[in-house]
Amino acid sequence: MGNFCGSQKNTNVRISLPAVCFVWQIAMIVLFGVFVRYNEESDAHWGEHKKAHNITSDIENDFYYRYPSFQDVHVMIFVGFGFLMTFLKRYSFGAVGFNFLIAAFGLQWAILMQGWFHSFDYATAKIYVGVENMINADFCVAGSLIAFGGILGKVSPVQLMVVALFGVTLYAVEEYIILTLLHCRDAGGSMVIHAFGGYYGLAISWVLYRPNLHQSKRLNGSVYHSDMFAMIGTLFLWMFWPSFNSAIANHGDGQHRAALNTYLSLAASVLTAVAISSMSQKTGKLDMVHIQNATLAGGVAMGTSGEFMITPYGSLIVGFCCGIISTFGYLFVTPFLESKLKLQDTCGIHNLHAVPGMLGGFVGAIVAATASESVYGKEGLSSTLGLEGSFANRSPGTQGGYQAAGTCVAIAFGLVGGGIVGLILKIPIWGDPADDNCFDDEVYWEVPEDEETIPPVLEYNNHMRHKQQELSASSFNIEQC
Amino acid sequence: MGNFCGSQKNTNVRISLPAVCFVWQIAMIVLFGVFVRYNEESDAHWGEHKKAHNITSDIENDFYYRYPSFQDVHVMIFVGFGFLMTFLKRYSFGAVGFNFLIAAFGLQWAILMQGWFHSFDYATAKIYVGVENMINADFCVAGSLIAFGGILGKVSPVQLMVVALFGVTLYAVEEYIILTLLHCRDAGGSMVIHAFGGYYGLAISWVLYRPNLHQSKRLNGSVYHSDMFAMIGTLFLWMFWPSFNSAIANHGDGQHRAALNTYLSLAASVLTAVAISSMSQKTGKLDMVHIQNATLAGGVAMGTSGEFMITPYGSLIVGFCCGIISTFGYLFVTPFLESKLKLQDTCGIHNLHAVPGMLGGFVGAIVAATASESVYGKEGLSSTLGLEGSFANRSPGTQGGYQAAGTCVAIAFGLVGGGIVGLILKIPIWGDPADDNCFDDEVYWEVPEDEETIPPVLEYNNHMRHKQQELSASSFNIEQC
Amino acid sequence: MGNFCGSQKNTNVRISLPAVCFVWQIAMIVLFGVFVRYNEESDAHWGEHKKAHNITSDIENDFYYRYPSFQDVHVMIFVGFGFLMTFLKRYSFGAVGFNFLIAAFGLQWAILMQGWFHSFDYATAKIYVGVENMINADFCVAGSLIAFGGILGKVSPVQLMVVALFGVTLYAVEEYIILTLLHCRDAGGSMVIHAFGGYYGLAISWVLYRPNLHQSKRLNGSVYHSDMFAMIGTLFLWMFWPSFNSAIANHGDGQHRAALNTYLSLAASVLTAVAISSMSQKTGKLDMVHIQNATLAGGVAMGTSGEFMITPYGSLIVGFCCGIISTFGYLFVTPFLESKLKLQDTCGIHNLHAVPGMLGGFVGAIVAATASESVYGKEGLSSTLGLEGSFANRSPGTQGGYQAAGTCVAIAFGLVGGGIVGLILKIPIWGDPADDNCFDDEVYWEVPEDEETIPPVLEYNNHMRHKQQELSASSFNIEQC
Repeated sequence: MGNFCGSQKNTNVRISLPAVCFVWQIAMIVLFGVFVRYNEESDAHWGEHKKAHNITSDIENDFYYRYPSFQDVHVMIFVGFGFLMTFLKRYSFGAVGFNFLIAAFGLQWAILMQGWFHSFDYATAKIYVGVENMINADFCVAGSLIAFGGILGKVSPVQLMVVALFGVTLYAVEEYIILTLLHCRDAGGSMVIHAFGGYYGLAISWVLYRPNLHQSKRLNGSVYHSDMFAMIGTLFLWMFWPSFNSAIANHGDGQHRAALNTYLSLAASVLTAVAISSMSQKTGKLDMVHIQNATLAGGVAMGTSGEFMITPYGSLIVGFCCGIISTFGYLFVTPFLESKLKLQDTCGIHNLHAVPGMLGGFVGAIVAATASESVYGKEGLSSTLGLEGSFANRSPGTQGGYQAAGTCVAIAFGLVGGGIVGLILKIPIWGDPADDNCFDDEVYWEVPEDEETIPPVLEYNNHMRHKQQELSASSFNIEQC
Repeated sequence: MGNFCGSQKNTNVRISLPAVCFVWQIAMIVLFGVFVRYNEESDAHWGEHKKAHNITSDIENDFYYRYPSFQDVHVMIFVGFGFLMTFLKRYSFGAVGFNFLIAAFGLQWAILMQGWFHSFDYATAKIYVGVENMINADFCVAGSLIAFGGILGKVSPVQLMVVALFGVTLYAVEEYIILTLLHCRDAGGSMVIHAFGGYYGLAISWVLYRPNLHQSKRLNGSVYHSDMFAMIGTLFLWMFWPSFNSAIANHGDGQHRAALNTYLSLAASVLTAVAISSMSQKTGKLDMVHIQNATLAGGVAMGTSGEFMITPYGSLIVGFCCGIISTFGYLFVTPFLESKLKLQDTCGIHNLHAVPGMLGGFVGAIVAATASESVYGKEGLSSTLGLEGSFANRSPGTQGGYQAAGTCVAIAFGLVGGGIVGLILKIPIWGDPADDNCFDDEVYWEVPEDEETIPPVLEYNNHMRHKQQELSASSFNIEQC
Repeated sequence: MGNFCGSQKNTNVRISLPAVCFVWQIAMIVLFGVFVRYNEESDAHWGEHKKAHNITSDIENDFYYRYPSFQDVHVMIFVGFGFLMTFLKRYSFGAVGFNFLIAAFGLQWAILMQGWFHSFDYATAKIYVGVENMINADFCVAGSLIAFGGILGKVSPVQLMVVALFGVTLYAVEEYIILTLLHCRDAGGSMVIHAFGGYYGLAISWVLYRPNLHQSKRLNGSVYHSDMFAMIGTLFLWMFWPSFNSAIANHGDGQHRAALNTYLSLAASVLTAVAISSMSQKTGKLDMVHIQNATLAGGVAMGTSGEFMITPYGSLIVGFCCGIISTFGYLFVTPFLESKLKLQDTCGIHNLHAVPGMLGGFVGAIVAATASESVYGKEGLSSTLGLEGSFANRSPGTQGGYQAAGTCVAIAFGLVGGGIVGLILKIPIWGDPADDNCFDDEVYWEVPEDEETIPPVLEYNNHMRHKQQELSASSFNIEQC
């Protein structure tokens, strides 16, 4: 088919894309060979470990606490994020395919980066991995996938690989600062995943501003069935968000409570998103953009406080507010960002991730600061807020301050890191599409010729079977200009 | 786009829909604030509770017994029910979007209603909630979603909110009568969910009969891809039904057996649904309506007896019969209901839920009545049939009688409740669509203009890119009449 | 609509399909009645069993170890395999519908066949079943579904039922030889599922070679949205493959390690599949066929060695190589097979299942042969390689030899069995489609008339609502020729 007639830019990635894939994958193999080993619970020595630690049953293996949640998170990463972005009429291959590519690369790099920071054993110089590392790697990748949403349709797959490489790296560092140095709690990642990922993507998108993007306007919208595919993404994200926020929470009540709070918060988001969406149209019609995105804001915002004793009605209040804020964002803030701040945010990650993530961080700070022994119990307070070991003397109020500081760190990392990565992506070697060629799968994909895109007079004749062959050929010529 | 040319009815929901969403969501927050708290297993005091009750491991938290099943049920409610109803060519947004809305509202109201009836602690005047309440809330909502299937395309979202409000309320009451007062067993809800929900929807649909619905006939059917979206719903319902029927069954063998029985029954349904579907066409072609629906009848019918010792071949027999009955329903009963009883049942809930649910209730009664200590063991008999505590003296035969009575209660609640709700919905304030405007997303949704719906002569010209802008405008005028 | 104009073959299955469904389903019921009972963990006597065996908690019921994995496997079988094959523009109903039919039949027959070989109790002459049998039945069916991929679009549903009947039978026998007699390890089925299923399908397809298949060439390809539906299948297979390979692995570290290894191997496959796909096109564009299929090769190849101590980087290497090999297969081997070997492999099962499965078997043999006590621990070595009981004296090297032999047995069973079944399918009684009628849902399905397939001049007039009825009728006549 060749590129779209009239496009001037070189979007050929035949050398760069395979080169990046091969070099990075080989690097992964080498680094895994040097550093990564099974941990005690995934190693064949588990039987001996069990005896040595008086573990009575295989069911105590962390696998059984976390694997069902891991699989739900995995679905969110690949089907959830992937299909959520398929709403564009002619960028569904790119949405789901590039999401697949960068997530598969990113999770390997995440296991290494997070391993060096969190699971590194200095005695043996090895990273020991198990099911929790798999969940954390998926989480880490989510930050870069969020950023993908801001630049959807405007970058090449090679650029996305760069976004993922730096995104995972930055994530591991900010996560280390927030969770280890500041000792914040953030089981569902309002701060480290959503606030970071959202601002990371916004900063990249701001640097990559395209003044002539309106030339691709015909493709920057949905059709009926692309909106339905996007709903698959929305619903799998929405349904499995309780698993996302509870996957690495404390065993027992921690996981239980995080799932319950998230379930409630998400339900409230749906009602307020629908309400604001309906209010915004003269006849009260609903807008699919809001239903696909703003309904999820309650899950984002419960990432930090989901494991806290925020109370069931507290969860509903958070979801209530975030559904409103997120929908207002789609109505007013995204157009404002584009026209005034020169920031083109394809999926509206500002409204779904950046702001609800930031709010979730501050809600977590408030809930932590107001925690008390009467509500949590003595043991519950220290284990839930992590006030154990060398942090045993930290008061809930102080912890709340650190939580707020952690949110700011995540935002700062996103903005500064995204700015730098954006500049790197401006180097004209990455094969990104021309302004009149964005949001179009034709650029990076072999797109099948749909019957319905054949000019209809030919299509009509097509029904006369005996003429089929010749006509196909002539329709092909027309398509080629 | 405005409403469809020629429609007389006022379908503007710009005030009513946001008002209902806001008022009800705020009511939920207030009521949750007054009544709902974490239970012992989701509260931060779990550590103390564990010690006090000699629970040795976090894995004994009910969360780990039930959460994987909960997530499967959650998928059935939102993706399963939602996508199953996307089969209509131009009502997919409404199917999946309104399903999302009323389920998200309904589950909150369900936690309250079921909490007052089942989990209310009179000492503290609180409802204590955990994972089992989440599952039960999803179950409760299912009753109203089934009813949605009967009136799909013919009501406004505000009416659906009313259907859910009353549906959940009625469900909680009938469930209290059936499970608590009559002390029936119904882990998978053949009676309380499917028989109730099915007859509830049928009664509403009967009251809302539209003699001129044929005016919307052009939209009351599927296209190729809408049938494929519906298959997503079918398959997720079919695959996860074993989780549905086992989610709140007894720990251990109860959950194990319910999953196994449902798995087998569903498999048999597929074969008989295919057989009858093929027999019904002159050349043996299959009808997607049957494949999408009747294959699920075996799961509905195992809701009550799934946890009983019905035996593997007993499960196959139930699935075998229900696949036949359900397909015959689609072939003969639905047309009969419409032409003779003036009952327009869009999705055929009569054949998928009402009748298989009722049969499932009676199968459960028979299996319970024939239970014996030799088959169940002494302990197994009392725990499986619930013949414990103040019901220890009830014989299996008597229990069977109560099960049959419970089925009748569920049907009665559905019919009477549905009749009343139908009358409420006839009040002309709800913004429902006109007869020539049913099954059309245009009424309540901002629908993107698909390329293929542009009149083809214009579409052809459209391929000449330089004329695009002006032509779009003129096509717009034509669409507007 | 009747059959396609010009087709000569009799594709009427109105008698044969219902007959096969009814007779086989009734046979299942009778055989289940004679042979199948609940096992100790799904029987109501579980409470007594628990006491007798000093099992302290219900959570030790095998259900809780395996049920979450079972549900993931179930999704792979029905949504994964079903939707993966929906890529053809007009065979999506057949892909997902026939997959549904033969899987639902096959799993019943599998429980019997595998039960007779593996779970048969000679004392009582009964097969006792529980969650592991459900997983194994799904696995067994997978072999036949793989074969379906090779003959997709070219056979009738009755022929597919025959493929499943013999496929399950052959599977149970080869599995008995490989796992019991040769005492191989193959938890994820590289050998018994993928190598067998792949060569079984290839042999059938070879026997059923159609020299004039080019007459259906217009339908042997995808359209934009059918490729998106196929991605649903791809992603659910990809995401849940860790559950597939770990579902019946040893409790504890076995399941944990199998999931981790598969997760890594699959990630590497994605990068190399993308790289080779991009290299193969002049401008570096990606081909959906490769993304949909070759990304999965790493999961297939880890089926045997997933539970071994292959090391994390070993898993990456396997995925790396198989992604390359599989994509090369799609680029060069499939066209070669068709032009030179007269083998028409619709889905390319040669590249996704046959070769990666065979490689997985040999990788497993090598990893087993090089196992040592220092790596596995004494206890870990014997339990992981199964060198227990009467096989306690077998060395890892010998075990490796048996693993290699097992792979050859699987391939031999596939080739010989497939050849025989292919000959059976050549008998002209099965209602298979004519050469110009393949890949077309019209043959076996009531296909809704899409708006876009109505000849466009009529479609245009259609927009004038008042003429609708008469025009529909006339368009109908044209369709009928």
